[in-house]
Amino acid sequence: MIEAAPLDRMFTALADASRRGMVERLSLGPATVKQLAGPTNMGLPSALKHLKVLEDGGIVVSRKVGRTRTFSMQPDAFREMDEWVRARKATMNMAFDRLAEAMKAFPEEDGTS
Amino acid sequence: MIEAAPLDRMFTALADASRRGMVERLSLGPATVKQLAGPTNMGLPSALKHLKVLEDGGIVVSRKVGRTRTFSMQPDAFREMDEWVRARKATMNMAFDRLAEAMKAFPEEDGTS
Repeated sequence: MIEAAPLDRMFTALADASRRGMVERLSLGPATVKQLAGPTNMGLPSALKHLKVLEDGGIVVSRKVGRTRTFSMQPDAFREMDEWVRARKATMNMAFDRLAEAMKAFPEEDGTS
Repeated sequence: MIEAAPLDRMFTALADASRRGMVERLSLGPATVKQLAGPTNMGLPSALKHLKVLEDGGIVVSRKVGRTRTFSMQPDAFREMDEWVRARKATMNMAFDRLAEAMKAFPEEDGTS
């Protein structure tokens, strides 16, 4: 069982279009706060706030060299989320299969009324 | 480009442990509000509120027969989310490959200091 809190933070991090835009940019390669704020009309403090949410969610990491903080994707950024979703889908598929199996026990309907 | 709003709602829906618990239960098959509220210490109004968030997020659907509302998984519940994540991963992998290619141009370091 995966702990709840990290998944809460991960899903929350991605529940905002501005933050998803930053992730789209960072998927291409590392970028500074200035570069990430640039294409939007976002101020630096606001951009940094969004980036902190992404970092808390385990989606991005940052490194400060001198006065410049550079952000990049966490290499296994989506792992926990993927695992959780994959487990749900597997369960759903098994449930659908069981249902299909159970339906075989009923006489076929021909769809006419 | 996928519209922002549905993805916002989808990620928000999954950013809560109680709601993820409901999704875990519904992956096994349809359930009523009472059945979904049962195992938690949640009241029915609170459970219904969470279920509405999941329904707005496109994760579950509901159907009311008489006085009983039954919830079930939306068959392609995670599709938009999966597509968005898959696109990011593809971009990340291409960026890593480009980086690995670029590294070849540099003389090897042997790791000793």
